Amino acid sequence: MIVVQMNERSSSLDIARVCDHQERRGMQIRVVPGRRGSTIVCEGHSETDLELKKLPSVKAVSRTNCPYPLASLEVSGPQGPVEVGRGLSIGGGSVAVMAGPCSVESREQLLETARGVASSGASVLRGGAFKPRSNPYSFQGLGSQGIDLLLEAREDTGLPIVTEVMSPEDVEWLAPQVDILQVGTRSMQNFPLLKALGRVDTPVLLKRGMASTVDEWLQAAEYILAGGNSRVILCERGIRSFDKSTRNTLDLSIVPLVKSLTHLPVVVDPSHATGKRHLVAPMSLAALAAGADGLIVEVHSRPEEALCDGPQSLDLPAFDGLMNRISRLMDALEPEESEWGLKVAM
Amino acid sequence: MIVVQMNERSSSLDIARVCDHQERRGMQIRVVPGRRGSTIVCEGHSETDLELKKLPSVKAVSRTNCPYPLASLEVSGPQGPVEVGRGLSIGGGSVAVMAGPCSVESREQLLETARGVASSGASVLRGGAFKPRSNPYSFQGLGSQGIDLLLEAREDTGLPIVTEVMSPEDVEWLAPQVDILQVGTRSMQNFPLLKALGRVDTPVLLKRGMASTVDEWLQAAEYILAGGNSRVILCERGIRSFDKSTRNTLDLSIVPLVKSLTHLPVVVDPSHATGKRHLVAPMSLAALAAGADGLIVEVHSRPEEALCDGPQSLDLPAFDGLMNRISRLMDALEPEESEWGLKVAM
Amino acid sequence: MIVVQMNERSSSLDIARVCDHQERRGMQIRVVPGRRGSTIVCEGHSETDLELKKLPSVKAVSRTNCPYPLASLEVSGPQGPVEVGRGLSIGGGSVAVMAGPCSVESREQLLETARGVASSGASVLRGGAFKPRSNPYSFQGLGSQGIDLLLEAREDTGLPIVTEVMSPEDVEWLAPQVDILQVGTRSMQNFPLLKALGRVDTPVLLKRGMASTVDEWLQAAEYILAGGNSRVILCERGIRSFDKSTRNTLDLSIVPLVKSLTHLPVVVDPSHATGKRHLVAPMSLAALAAGADGLIVEVHSRPEEALCDGPQSLDLPAFDGLMNRISRLMDALEPEESEWGLKVAM
Amino acid sequence: MIVVQMNERSSSLDIARVCDHQERRGMQIRVVPGRRGSTIVCEGHSETDLELKKLPSVKAVSRTNCPYPLASLEVSGPQGPVEVGRGLSIGGGSVAVMAGPCSVESREQLLETARGVASSGASVLRGGAFKPRSNPYSFQGLGSQGIDLLLEAREDTGLPIVTEVMSPEDVEWLAPQVDILQVGTRSMQNFPLLKALGRVDTPVLLKRGMASTVDEWLQAAEYILAGGNSRVILCERGIRSFDKSTRNTLDLSIVPLVKSLTHLPVVVDPSHATGKRHLVAPMSLAALAAGADGLIVEVHSRPEEALCDGPQSLDLPAFDGLMNRISRLMDALEPEESEWGLKVAM
Repeated sequence: MIVVQMNERSSSLDIARVCDHQERRGMQIRVVPGRRGSTIVCEGHSETDLELKKLPSVKAVSRTNCPYPLASLEVSGPQGPVEVGRGLSIGGGSVAVMAGPCSVESREQLLETARGVASSGASVLRGGAFKPRSNPYSFQGLGSQGIDLLLEAREDTGLPIVTEVMSPEDVEWLAPQVDILQVGTRSMQNFPLLKALGRVDTPVLLKRGMASTVDEWLQAAEYILAGGNSRVILCERGIRSFDKSTRNTLDLSIVPLVKSLTHLPVVVDPSHATGKRHLVAPMSLAALAAGADGLIVEVHSRPEEALCDGPQSLDLPAFDGLMNRISRLMDALEPEESEWGLKVAM
Repeated sequence: MIVVQMNERSSSLDIARVCDHQERRGMQIRVVPGRRGSTIVCEGHSETDLELKKLPSVKAVSRTNCPYPLASLEVSGPQGPVEVGRGLSIGGGSVAVMAGPCSVESREQLLETARGVASSGASVLRGGAFKPRSNPYSFQGLGSQGIDLLLEAREDTGLPIVTEVMSPEDVEWLAPQVDILQVGTRSMQNFPLLKALGRVDTPVLLKRGMASTVDEWLQAAEYILAGGNSRVILCERGIRSFDKSTRNTLDLSIVPLVKSLTHLPVVVDPSHATGKRHLVAPMSLAALAAGADGLIVEVHSRPEEALCDGPQSLDLPAFDGLMNRISRLMDALEPEESEWGLKVAM
Repeated sequence: MIVVQMNERSSSLDIARVCDHQERRGMQIRVVPGRRGSTIVCEGHSETDLELKKLPSVKAVSRTNCPYPLASLEVSGPQGPVEVGRGLSIGGGSVAVMAGPCSVESREQLLETARGVASSGASVLRGGAFKPRSNPYSFQGLGSQGIDLLLEAREDTGLPIVTEVMSPEDVEWLAPQVDILQVGTRSMQNFPLLKALGRVDTPVLLKRGMASTVDEWLQAAEYILAGGNSRVILCERGIRSFDKSTRNTLDLSIVPLVKSLTHLPVVVDPSHATGKRHLVAPMSLAALAAGADGLIVEVHSRPEEALCDGPQSLDLPAFDGLMNRISRLMDALEPEESEWGLKVAM
Repeated sequence: MIVVQMNERSSSLDIARVCDHQERRGMQIRVVPGRRGSTIVCEGHSETDLELKKLPSVKAVSRTNCPYPLASLEVSGPQGPVEVGRGLSIGGGSVAVMAGPCSVESREQLLETARGVASSGASVLRGGAFKPRSNPYSFQGLGSQGIDLLLEAREDTGLPIVTEVMSPEDVEWLAPQVDILQVGTRSMQNFPLLKALGRVDTPVLLKRGMASTVDEWLQAAEYILAGGNSRVILCERGIRSFDKSTRNTLDLSIVPLVKSLTHLPVVVDPSHATGKRHLVAPMSLAALAAGADGLIVEVHSRPEEALCDGPQSLDLPAFDGLMNRISRLMDALEPEESEWGLKVAM
């Protein structure tokens, strides 16, 4: 694979020249637009590219076997934080805490929870409107009505919102409305969905598949990047193992591993990983000590009444306590440790 | 959960009366049409249903905790084989062998392979037109052009065809064209896709998710059944484990287990499970000895030239040898063993 | 690694010459006596061995990266069946069925079961005297008293006996008494135990560790072989996976895989693998169809009274039915299939 | 199960009376001596124990289904830290860092490393003399010569030493010599070894089996406790999962989980868990943030020359840097968080 980085001012003609040059050598071409200039990914064998480097507007040419060149730190270099909008960016030295209920259940529940997490310093409001449920007879979420409630809660609190999208056909209408689109663990290799997300520019929170390797996860991110959407945030949420003493097995070692492989930010979901409320706070601190760029935590104003995932949801006072602990932890990690310990941005 | 089985001649009014009766008791209702009469699945608590049994056209009422009542052998009873059309039915004492290339690559490759497997006695032609690939730069299949080639191969050989569908929006146009729609392992919990498949009546081959429990698999089948499509065929294709000495870990014990839990037929894919050509034949025989209702096997007229999964594809002579062995194996299993050993129907 | 095969009549001096030759080249030497002549395994780097081949009594010299040269089919070639004694050998075209209770509980229970399985055609009587139990307060087996009962049952029925050994210090006194020593799944990498077993010549049934790769399993066998005991029988008994719908996940694909890697025979334990009585018979047939050289099956004259593993034990009539089915299955597999389908020897 | 806690001054006669009382009710008795009085564990059914409570010296009687009553926090209550000797105790608010090479290779290597880790503030020197190796031809450790070198290093640095014991027959002679006996992951269910360790009073570092559940791990600890040795320290070192991007999958969520289930201290081994040097420091911090009572870290004065596990070993400067970071992290966690965040004791 050959990756050609064009400079920022490359014209359409410059790009076409590179494509033509490579196609004549039998390569398959994909042009990926980017803030700092387009990238041209060329699949196939090519022996010499001395000429290629001399074409107009070509900034850099690299040959790689990495199956995710756009996501790769080595191939593509640092890319800076992912800008979410509303003044928030994720990665690059700040800690983003996304908090809210598993599913949007009612106006009252959502507003009460949203206001609570906002006042404790959360960066993003989470809430599911379209819920992937193992059983067809379970509550499937409020759908577009849930989206409306999220928009109202955003208006009310000023918090940007993240919500799951399950179907490619929902991407187009949801993308302009919400701040971050979440891809759930069961959808990590839903390739039509990933392709649809590549065609918008709303940030995507890509959860790791519960049985996916790190390599597959980064290739799933590559689907979105290769489609032209550079705003991908990774999320570790636990994998399936033989031991059921926690809901999933939180694979925290991959946080520093992934940060050495990719420029994309990584957040951690300690709620789905553990499935147990009393493990959420210690694993949140552990995730940040391991170098995570943020957290996504289930918080419910009345966990005992939750339609979904009550046992793993924090109530508002517990979330407030957690935010205080996070703040103290982050202060203790000095700047030079920033390769894996980052400051809270609240 | 309460499951009400209506008799075959129940009128719309009869059904409406049951629904009304249950809704007034606070239950959530789903009416599932069926060849032998509708089933009404009612979620929620209800204490007494003496009255319910007396309503017109009510054949049976059962109370169950089973999360997949329509798929359950205990709740719904035996349902007979799944009729595929073109004279083929799957389950109920015959062995169906689906064979063909991993992906449709060219007219020549497909026709050559199709004719070969047909002459060796295959029941169904398999071939992928829409390919789920981990990497965005890999060959993604020929798409609708691949479907056209499959239709031509069906015309040529008389074999019904099975092909994968990945996107809910493709279900509507593909369903009338092909004989069996395959749901791949990565899509087993793609709930929008399962719901779309519930709205057509084309048979569905539902592969087990590579990290899915038997319980989750049967609930995924229930999504399709609850949508009104009763033609679901299960397919075990190996799960993910710690050992990479085979591509996946073929979980053959669940064949007799699943047959004790559900009336749906179960076939086995030894090609994806093992990833190694020389293991395909022994595992095919093992699957049938364990009681599988059929096989889905990758066969390629020229495996060394395959764009995808060459190392696990049989060539035509090897497939022919396998079919002979299957035939002898099946003859040895006597009728009274039919709970787990079934006859070849070719 | 260099493996030197000496011929059958090599003298001690011949062997010493080879060792000296290799040690002077900086290699670490291990001499393994064998029925067909000693094997000398040399670890370390050596560039040329033209001289080595010319030393007296050297039959063959091979250079290999295989971590288990003595177990390897490629390096060591076919070795014929493992002779158990009392007229029984395992591997090489016959099917050995080992049957009996999980644990020896009483004289009555053992004799009743032993006579039953003998009359149905079992080849070996199994029974645990030393039981590895997860809990310290659980029944730990009858110990040496259990061994006495096994010896009595052998006297009574003529069946050779297999029983588990857990401690290196028990190997010396147990080895001359029993016909096969079993290494349980939790002991597969108990290296002091494996070394002790290498120092006797009683056949060893080496169960696969529940989380061991095929590679680790064959290296565990190599420990015993390298100690000088060539009589190793492998036993697949299920691995740990995420799905608990069966007790373990029977990894049947490794049967033909392992038979392509090693000359050692492989038997299958469908009882511990599935943990469910109704799955034992189908998985027994499946194991044999996959090419296993035998089975080890839990049978109890009164399963409902068993102190251990009752739910997975067959009663005597069910075992008799299974033996009939095995017999029919084996008849159906023709000789030329013997690479994976073998005849019953009863 | 009934657990009778005797008070500290109970006489042999008092204990005998309780045993007799329970045996006459058909229960199986095990008397476990303890610093705060003996515990009598009684297996079997018993209906009323009003009388039992009135027997002399009986402090408390509890009925439980917990399979590990002595290890259980709920049944046995907090027990305080494990005293290692030489002024060190593990658990109870301090962080113990065990550091040293994977295997003892030479006098020079060991002393150089020992002095280095001592000067950086390690609490314990680790080093393997008896090495469990998957391959029989790999370096198996220096054996008793390695123990001598460890004793010399202890003399030299004042650090207590921890080393692995693999064989029950080695326990008796090793126990009086070393400060902590380590049980490796492959031996967690080596029950003869656990029983031998129950008969000495040297502290035991019990690593979690790579495929063991939390429940099985605590039952393995119970074997040692039930033998009369109350000094058990648990060690999480990563489990086997499908993903090989790290050597094992560090299951950090079980740290706070286990601390809610047992009074035993828990340390974490980030070296074997990740297998990658650059992940050791972030996962060390993460482990402590999750509430671990300590760490066991592989350090080698010259990692590039290590005979074993070089790629996961820190060199001395990296270890020194880690100790500084640990110190800062611990200072940041306030006392009231001590349920999961503990102070460094160096």
